[in-house]
Amino acid sequence: MKIYRADWLVTQDDSRAVLEDAALAIEGGLVSDVGPAADVLARHPGAEVDDLGASAILPGLIDAHTHVPMSALRGAADDKALFAWLGEDIFPREARWEPALLRVSSLLSFAEMIRTGTTAFWDMYMLQENVFAAADEAGVRGVIGENVVRFFPQLGGATREALFDRIRANAEAWRGHPRLRGAVAPHAVYTTDPDTLLACRALADEVGWRFGMHMSETRKETADCLAERGARPIPYCDSLGILRADTALFHCVDVDDADLAILRERGCAAVHNPASNMKLASGAAPVPRILAAGVPLAIGTDGPASNNAQNMLRETWLAALLGKLASGDPTAVSARTALDMATRGGAAAIGDPLAGRLAPGSRADFFALDLCTPGLQPVNDVVSNVVYAATGLENRLTVVDGRELYRDGRYLSLDWGALLAEAENLRRWAGQR
Amino acid sequence: MKIYRADWLVTQDDSRAVLEDAALAIEGGLVSDVGPAADVLARHPGAEVDDLGASAILPGLIDAHTHVPMSALRGAADDKALFAWLGEDIFPREARWEPALLRVSSLLSFAEMIRTGTTAFWDMYMLQENVFAAADEAGVRGVIGENVVRFFPQLGGATREALFDRIRANAEAWRGHPRLRGAVAPHAVYTTDPDTLLACRALADEVGWRFGMHMSETRKETADCLAERGARPIPYCDSLGILRADTALFHCVDVDDADLAILRERGCAAVHNPASNMKLASGAAPVPRILAAGVPLAIGTDGPASNNAQNMLRETWLAALLGKLASGDPTAVSARTALDMATRGGAAAIGDPLAGRLAPGSRADFFALDLCTPGLQPVNDVVSNVVYAATGLENRLTVVDGRELYRDGRYLSLDWGALLAEAENLRRWAGQR
Repeated sequence: MKIYRADWLVTQDDSRAVLEDAALAIEGGLVSDVGPAADVLARHPGAEVDDLGASAILPGLIDAHTHVPMSALRGAADDKALFAWLGEDIFPREARWEPALLRVSSLLSFAEMIRTGTTAFWDMYMLQENVFAAADEAGVRGVIGENVVRFFPQLGGATREALFDRIRANAEAWRGHPRLRGAVAPHAVYTTDPDTLLACRALADEVGWRFGMHMSETRKETADCLAERGARPIPYCDSLGILRADTALFHCVDVDDADLAILRERGCAAVHNPASNMKLASGAAPVPRILAAGVPLAIGTDGPASNNAQNMLRETWLAALLGKLASGDPTAVSARTALDMATRGGAAAIGDPLAGRLAPGSRADFFALDLCTPGLQPVNDVVSNVVYAATGLENRLTVVDGRELYRDGRYLSLDWGALLAEAENLRRWAGQR
Repeated sequence: MKIYRADWLVTQDDSRAVLEDAALAIEGGLVSDVGPAADVLARHPGAEVDDLGASAILPGLIDAHTHVPMSALRGAADDKALFAWLGEDIFPREARWEPALLRVSSLLSFAEMIRTGTTAFWDMYMLQENVFAAADEAGVRGVIGENVVRFFPQLGGATREALFDRIRANAEAWRGHPRLRGAVAPHAVYTTDPDTLLACRALADEVGWRFGMHMSETRKETADCLAERGARPIPYCDSLGILRADTALFHCVDVDDADLAILRERGCAAVHNPASNMKLASGAAPVPRILAAGVPLAIGTDGPASNNAQNMLRETWLAALLGKLASGDPTAVSARTALDMATRGGAAAIGDPLAGRLAPGSRADFFALDLCTPGLQPVNDVVSNVVYAATGLENRLTVVDGRELYRDGRYLSLDWGALLAEAENLRRWAGQR
């Protein structure tokens, strides 16, 4: 058992208790006790106590939609329309991926997450054995989704069967991992067909993986789906029977009340990506309507290529601001609502009800923001300061599954010096066209 | 003379040169030489060389609209409509200000600016002798505007003459300061009348101060001004003859083409405040239209009470994202355009054409971002990383007027330990209602 004490503890438990001068006891990867510091210390005499002083401990943030291996492409191109960006800048480079670079690029993403308080993620990319290996090494928690489209050959396989066999092999190799789980991730309705979607669903059920896809990202996607499939994206997918309680749907910008009723009925989680939706001028997900419909709602960065960061505090702040602007209501999407999305909402998206909160029995996944920085003083309201003022780099400690991954400038699971040296190789690779 | 070398130098000069392996020579508060490191070093043999390694040097950011003394109110209330927030949370506390708290609160704001790369500001508040003293101590550059409304008594004086005499005394006390200049700042059209606005203009001309006011922040302001004054806010103010080349107008959310033609004609600068406008659901300034009209455009945070930070990198990122979303065009407001607003646009707003760029003869006002952080690797495009990925806390050096104010965790003009201890007094003060 180990006890962490801090001036503030934002539990995100069922009552959303925010405690001053509080402590957290952890044991075997789980939280065993939470409360006022004096009480927790008195209940566990002799336990090791780690005093984080003027810090705020929070449950680790969950980046519920990202593309982990894309750090290499950060800033490779910006300020372009989506299809020009993909066709001119992203796809040509992705055709040249080498596994060693995918590994380095993924580790760089995990370093960024660990540095800024993100402890778990839902990832979607190709050749995901690289992300499994990198996430295992980095010590983070996550769902690792293999991207599937209807066109072959694709990076993950020459044929659908080859790709699916790769997924089966990854499922076998990583079965029972304490922190990592796979997912089958058909890319979107516009890059698949009913046969592909049904095959993906069947494969997910076969190997026991979760399921997720980009959904309703733009009004064009809706219009094209109506024209080609005779229904909006969500009813179309629902008619195929692929939407279940294991499903996360990324973006959900252009969703109407009937769409939301389906998500609620099927138990799907929606994931809001405010920075990416703004940068690509896709629009704004109707956050208050999604929440009012009772659909679990998380936040994602959409990864380092389009975001261009994987900084969930920045994204949480933006979710609050965009929610107010888009609804025309400054009382909408409060700091507390946004923080709920980034923690408990993320736990719903990754399917781990023990994550995203700090309470007896929850995951020992947390981080600690140093409040001794001018941007976080005074502490009139610690949740407000975390959501509206923190940058992410105030974080001084990241713990996942009870293990310290970052502390006061040092990465404890990753060799940061070696990674930084390899980042130059990523730049050289990205610089080739 | 001193030379600073870094792996990257974003000059923001007239050609927007971005140099790799570059150096900057400074002398007497000004930049004397800029160029490839080898060339600059060869031109100045024997000069002291400070190697910042894998950093990016940029001209200091300019927060062109803030309310410096309001740090004490950070997080005091959020998620409320503007008038409820002002009436219930802000005004009652402001009635209880004590000068000692105003000084501490202002120093805390300057510490946040210095920490995150902001070297200059345009401030608007009351009892501004406190901000003059704090800014003089902190070493930053700025325009310090005294707020005027038509109602008396107000915090700055029992009568208009008393307030104006205070302004005259401040103008006398700080005349000729190398970095600080005053401004007369009528609050807005809806809190003044023609007589107040004309008196403010005359006073600014009398004491040689600049001029600025909140302008066209909401559609309600426009509608009310049309009803009460028979014109939109900008034509109304222009009819009084108060808009000149020394004038900065804050917000400019609800501006039409005729408004912009007036600003262009008069040489006024507009200041965009994306976070505040989103948080209060005021709308989005039409950034591409303002720029196309040829109106100098800067960025401001609107200060720690409504923002809730004074972090110009965060604000610059948001200006790019909001510009794309609001115009429906992902190619609008590029990283370079946003950086121009935060540097050269800010220089126009504060009326200092030597600021906001690094070129021979410009101000030696700059900061240096440490690129050895996972969120800023790889460096495919240093400007993209600065605008789209940096948080502000990567900054390791802030220089104003050739003087180092912050370096690698240490504040060199401020006593951070003493300030942190006093922040608890701000919290106690803000906690009283």
